[in-house]
Amino acid sequence: MTDFERTRAMFDLPKGIVYLDGNSLGPLPRAATDAVARVMRDEWGHELIRAWNTCGWMAQPLALGDRIGRLIGAPPGTVAVGDTLSIKVYQALASALRLRPGRRVILSDSGNFPSDLYMAQGLIGLLGDRELRTPAPEDVAAAINEDVAVVMLTEVDYRTGRRHDMPALTARAHAAGALIIWDLAHSAGAVPVDVAGGNADFAVGCTYKYLNGGPGSPAFIYLGPSVADQARPALAGWLGHDAPFAFDPDYRPAGGVARMRVGTPPILAYAALSAALDVWDEVDMADLRARSIELSERFIAEVEARCPDLELASPRDPHARGSQVSFRFADGYAAMQALIARGVIGDFRAPDIMRFGFTPLYLTEAEVVRGAEVLEEVIRDRLYDRPEHRRVEAVT
Amino acid sequence: MTDFERTRAMFDLPKGIVYLDGNSLGPLPRAATDAVARVMRDEWGHELIRAWNTCGWMAQPLALGDRIGRLIGAPPGTVAVGDTLSIKVYQALASALRLRPGRRVILSDSGNFPSDLYMAQGLIGLLGDRELRTPAPEDVAAAINEDVAVVMLTEVDYRTGRRHDMPALTARAHAAGALIIWDLAHSAGAVPVDVAGGNADFAVGCTYKYLNGGPGSPAFIYLGPSVADQARPALAGWLGHDAPFAFDPDYRPAGGVARMRVGTPPILAYAALSAALDVWDEVDMADLRARSIELSERFIAEVEARCPDLELASPRDPHARGSQVSFRFADGYAAMQALIARGVIGDFRAPDIMRFGFTPLYLTEAEVVRGAEVLEEVIRDRLYDRPEHRRVEAVT
Repeated sequence: MTDFERTRAMFDLPKGIVYLDGNSLGPLPRAATDAVARVMRDEWGHELIRAWNTCGWMAQPLALGDRIGRLIGAPPGTVAVGDTLSIKVYQALASALRLRPGRRVILSDSGNFPSDLYMAQGLIGLLGDRELRTPAPEDVAAAINEDVAVVMLTEVDYRTGRRHDMPALTARAHAAGALIIWDLAHSAGAVPVDVAGGNADFAVGCTYKYLNGGPGSPAFIYLGPSVADQARPALAGWLGHDAPFAFDPDYRPAGGVARMRVGTPPILAYAALSAALDVWDEVDMADLRARSIELSERFIAEVEARCPDLELASPRDPHARGSQVSFRFADGYAAMQALIARGVIGDFRAPDIMRFGFTPLYLTEAEVVRGAEVLEEVIRDRLYDRPEHRRVEAVT
Repeated sequence: MTDFERTRAMFDLPKGIVYLDGNSLGPLPRAATDAVARVMRDEWGHELIRAWNTCGWMAQPLALGDRIGRLIGAPPGTVAVGDTLSIKVYQALASALRLRPGRRVILSDSGNFPSDLYMAQGLIGLLGDRELRTPAPEDVAAAINEDVAVVMLTEVDYRTGRRHDMPALTARAHAAGALIIWDLAHSAGAVPVDVAGGNADFAVGCTYKYLNGGPGSPAFIYLGPSVADQARPALAGWLGHDAPFAFDPDYRPAGGVARMRVGTPPILAYAALSAALDVWDEVDMADLRARSIELSERFIAEVEARCPDLELASPRDPHARGSQVSFRFADGYAAMQALIARGVIGDFRAPDIMRFGFTPLYLTEAEVVRGAEVLEEVIRDRLYDRPEHRRVEAVT
């Protein structure tokens, strides 16, 4: 059994805060600061350029990939870590289009995270003669046909937490001869995922949400056996070359997912991510999922009992959700500011979604109840009407 | 006058090492470790998601860009920091091809850094019907004609240090109706650069070499006024959107270089880079260049007097070089290993180049002489014949 008291003790959490936004930026793992300082002083500082060899820096994109792989059902050697999620989306999309040259449609859905759609638009702008289709999420299955080169979906909707049926949609895409890319931004570390068992062609995700790798920490990409040695990354960087240090003038992709590496790896970010993954080494994903459902069900029950004006925007069936719960409320932006000012941190997504993440690694049931209590106070006393909560700031 | 004793004191340098490889990975700025720890504890740890607003994280890609801009002659607001250099090369190339739709040639040179060529090859593989031409560096000017959409050159050759004539080649490209991309990987922080005065359309560079931002620290991109509001980044990420937090389903590029931002910025890496740039705030580039020439001329004189078997591979005229000096030696790989084992760190580039970087921020004349003395010993006593120096390792 996963010991969640133990994992909670592995984080530095500010006192008095109920943190329901670990689905946006995970908190600081207690060991991360020293881990980064050690890499800076003992590796970068002491070894200088030699550290690329003596400290194993070059092996990290795939070594960290293997550790993430365990959490998403990816075998060793099939996941690479680096760049940002948008870059990894682009690599997957560009590869998929080349593997289905006769087809001109990228199929996504209208609920996908905008950056995924933008990357598709950017690629289409460059290539011309392609089309991005974005039906409503519930209409995706019916929209998969033989025009479609690649289906690109985010498993868990960033606003509502609604979860796509990954195995069913993957099978449907394959039956139509299309490839499929799964964006696991809100899945990795949130729900059990089985990319290999589910026959995903590509999967991508980020590490700064549930995985707690730190602000802007690197992304990951998985290549399934269907594409591992055929995919052309488009972003053909030297680290993805079969022999990066041969300085060959011609690009020749490395075998498997190693080809999806691009430029020089971000070693300081890797040090923080590695410390974050140490926590995950303690975790069984089935335990995590059970605990996530307990916490989110409790929150829904508390909020619905206390705040009748809020409308559940997430699926009521916990198996149809990721690890977040959203409520609609017309004054949701200001209400979220009022909540944050009182130490309960969630976030807001336009036009009216108040979003709360449930992260069993460090969240307790008492905190979940406390969050609902403060939310009740904000709504009941109309604290959101106060002018200081109506000032608009960017949030991520 | 720049005080190089003062800048040297701002680095943590391992005792007993003569570091002539700051052109590959700059050393650790003394303040960087604490700066990163502070961002981790006080910003990420304490502020959590709020730090994107309360700690100014969102402003950093352009704020850091402005600080680099001063070193390369770029006005405020024209440089963005993020991703890796290969990614920035791709954005510049893809933008340039779209701005010259009737032309099918990317012109580079055979001495360019392989990753730049690979990115061009990857882009061409995706687009089809384009051609990458790589004449010898000295033949580039003559190869610029009206087939050429974009000229992509690295100002300072990574092997020999040979410097292209940036203003002349830029003028020539423009006269032929082509755009030009300058890769400043071995220029930024090495030599005075004037991207705006020289009418560069695009410039890109990395920050882990002469700028000392740390292993795999983020890259930068400059857009000249000729392309600032026309360039389409291809990698159309949400951070480059005109209103990233509107979560608009359609991409609309931000004005100017802000559109070249892609994904969520790497905040820990930025903290280290910012500490590294604090050192540069003390530096006048003309002083730096004068000192760089003094150090490299002294090294050449010492090595040529002591090691007649080594052949200078860099231009003899210091104004035709960047801030590195290379020598050819048939047993160069093993000789470099022997040198490193004796505390003098340079690097090797196939087939026979021993490469030495001269970085006035922290390098003294005494160290330069010491480096030449040890090199003399390695060559004279054939220390490179020892088996332990012949084992091949990757180096970057």
